[in-house]
Amino acid sequence: MAAEIVNPRSDNGAGAEQEAGGQPLDSFDPAFALHRGGKMAVQATVPVRDKEDLSLAYTPGVAKVCSAIAEQPDLVHDYTWKSSVVAVVTDGTAVLGLGDIGPEASLPVMEGKAILFKQFGGVDAVPIALACTDADEIVETVVRLAPSFGGVNLEDISAPRCFEIERKLQERLDIPVFHDDQHGTAVVTLAALRNAVRLSGRTLGELRAVISGAGAAGVAIAKMLVEAGIGDVALADRKGIISAGRTDLTPVKEEVASFTNKAGLTGSLEDALAGADVFIGVSGGTVAEDAVASMAKGAFVFAMANPNPEVHPEVAHKYAAVVATGRSDFPNQINNVLAFPGIFAGALQVRASRITEGMKLAAAEALASVVGDDLAADYVIPSPFDERVAPAVTAAVAAAARAEGVARR
Amino acid sequence: MAAEIVNPRSDNGAGAEQEAGGQPLDSFDPAFALHRGGKMAVQATVPVRDKEDLSLAYTPGVAKVCSAIAEQPDLVHDYTWKSSVVAVVTDGTAVLGLGDIGPEASLPVMEGKAILFKQFGGVDAVPIALACTDADEIVETVVRLAPSFGGVNLEDISAPRCFEIERKLQERLDIPVFHDDQHGTAVVTLAALRNAVRLSGRTLGELRAVISGAGAAGVAIAKMLVEAGIGDVALADRKGIISAGRTDLTPVKEEVASFTNKAGLTGSLEDALAGADVFIGVSGGTVAEDAVASMAKGAFVFAMANPNPEVHPEVAHKYAAVVATGRSDFPNQINNVLAFPGIFAGALQVRASRITEGMKLAAAEALASVVGDDLAADYVIPSPFDERVAPAVTAAVAAAARAEGVARR
Repeated sequence: MAAEIVNPRSDNGAGAEQEAGGQPLDSFDPAFALHRGGKMAVQATVPVRDKEDLSLAYTPGVAKVCSAIAEQPDLVHDYTWKSSVVAVVTDGTAVLGLGDIGPEASLPVMEGKAILFKQFGGVDAVPIALACTDADEIVETVVRLAPSFGGVNLEDISAPRCFEIERKLQERLDIPVFHDDQHGTAVVTLAALRNAVRLSGRTLGELRAVISGAGAAGVAIAKMLVEAGIGDVALADRKGIISAGRTDLTPVKEEVASFTNKAGLTGSLEDALAGADVFIGVSGGTVAEDAVASMAKGAFVFAMANPNPEVHPEVAHKYAAVVATGRSDFPNQINNVLAFPGIFAGALQVRASRITEGMKLAAAEALASVVGDDLAADYVIPSPFDERVAPAVTAAVAAAARAEGVARR
Repeated sequence: MAAEIVNPRSDNGAGAEQEAGGQPLDSFDPAFALHRGGKMAVQATVPVRDKEDLSLAYTPGVAKVCSAIAEQPDLVHDYTWKSSVVAVVTDGTAVLGLGDIGPEASLPVMEGKAILFKQFGGVDAVPIALACTDADEIVETVVRLAPSFGGVNLEDISAPRCFEIERKLQERLDIPVFHDDQHGTAVVTLAALRNAVRLSGRTLGELRAVISGAGAAGVAIAKMLVEAGIGDVALADRKGIISAGRTDLTPVKEEVASFTNKAGLTGSLEDALAGADVFIGVSGGTVAEDAVASMAKGAFVFAMANPNPEVHPEVAHKYAAVVATGRSDFPNQINNVLAFPGIFAGALQVRASRITEGMKLAAAEALASVVGDDLAADYVIPSPFDERVAPAVTAAVAAAARAEGVARR
């Protein structure tokens, strides 16, 4: 339906929206001022100054390029921006800590993601916020628009649909599909953990980890830790430790039970933490100080909930050898921006058809290695603004894609 | 399905694709060289230099903006790029003169369109080439991705599906939906015709026009000429003049028969041209010189097929007072780029919910008026590079949107 018209306004670009007090929102907060008009734009990378330019970039010159692609479809990667552009796809159901706020309200986050792709990875990205939440509809929609893109970054889609959507999309598409809330978080967490392990002189295989939260991030971290050789890992959801004996598990959590918690723990999160070596919080909520105190000596506490870590760093430091959070105002920030720009840049560089476990592990290794000899308890993961990060991740991911046989160049 | 892997290649950015002789395509044609890597990119319009920038453009600052939009949905126009970005949507079925070449092969045209939007109208545009051709599937897909965009430019979708797709989309969306192959062409044609009429000292109401071609462009031009007050207009398709008596008409052409050809002409295109005042060619093919000679004295010949006009300008000039083509190497080029950037810029500026007939007529008037006192037989339409064009069209369209009650600011 066409919208009904309300009160045509002046076009001075401000003042249309007001809070109750009559002040424009911009005057209340610098974030609103910064967001006015959005955070991104498109630019031409070829000149369009005169007839001659136009005859090459548009008709008639463009027709030859179209015909060449029609005859030899792979050329689309060479002669369009396809292999440099990623769709940042959401349905707005799990946006930050805000939950299901819908596609329009999710756009500021998707634009933010897009400019981080560009700034940190040199990857072009376009926000695609969808007006549907059915998993099959989302899959069908993304499959239909995939010809225009070199990759799909799924974002802020709630669990458990996110698992099914990613799997079905990757089955149907020959471009990388990557749910950053899962794998980006897992890669950065593993990188930090590898460095914490190195600092402690121990090995991953000796450690027992506990993850609070069995949503997208928690499940992906668990898979990746197992892949990387963790000794044992247990997840806890709101009802306690996920174990094969529980009868209330969703299919995804049943699968989790099958490859985690070798020790067969049951009970609460606190029960799991007693004697554990690693805590990874991706749930929100609070972990009692007693439970932190009950962990093994020299434990690692990664309390990543934002803005309120599950364990405040000051509390964690009383008991833990290494503390990390999701916040930029404490050391050791577990920030996805350390991973996704380089992961996609590497995948696109070699035209990978997918992002494999090996590519993610390589990304974590590369990210961890940037820290190098500066390794310390308050420096197990580099800063997002460390310029060595994206090139290191990009190169490692590209090399891993070739090694795993999913590269097309 | 994941693509099978063929022969991993070096990443030096060239040489992957070769013609039979072993030379990369680039060395054969400057159009290929220009297209390498595509013609467009995304850029951030806000700084992302440090933690503070990140905390405003991304978390935690972005959350407030998301929450504000969730509470007051109209704010999406103020605080995201939605109101400056248009989706350039195609299914690749009617690309230039190349026909149904599919979505990937259409991308160079869509990118070209996108950079023309930016260059000439300051409008951001994103190519969306769809892997589906069913009208309802296209409609459903575009409705789902519409939250991210301020407008939809349909492009190179074959008739008659293009009519249905545009109509259904506009019924369901409250942002402008505009099939440029129809309306852009019609606006520019009407502008040129208005100036030809002015030059001749006649009025539109005195003229009888003949359009060769009853596809997207032909039908839209006919509607617009009737809207603008043409005396009479007849269309001819491959089977001859469209008249109410024909029994082989598609529903769209039946509708055409109902509002055109008041004279009740029957027979061939050549029959229609005898004594006609205006020829408008949007069909390809060739019109015999005899038929051009049979037109009324002082006729206007707009032979717009590209690259081969239906009547060569040298032939047309023997009989016609004003000659226009679709080519940039002859005077009076009927080029859609004169219209679509300003039309969308004007519509977006006032957040129009649709593009009305009145807005298109206003665009044509504005475009015609740029020629001003320099009006001459070889100057009835301005150059695409005339910098007065887009601002004039933008302002006229915005004003018309307000006048017609479809503006939201």
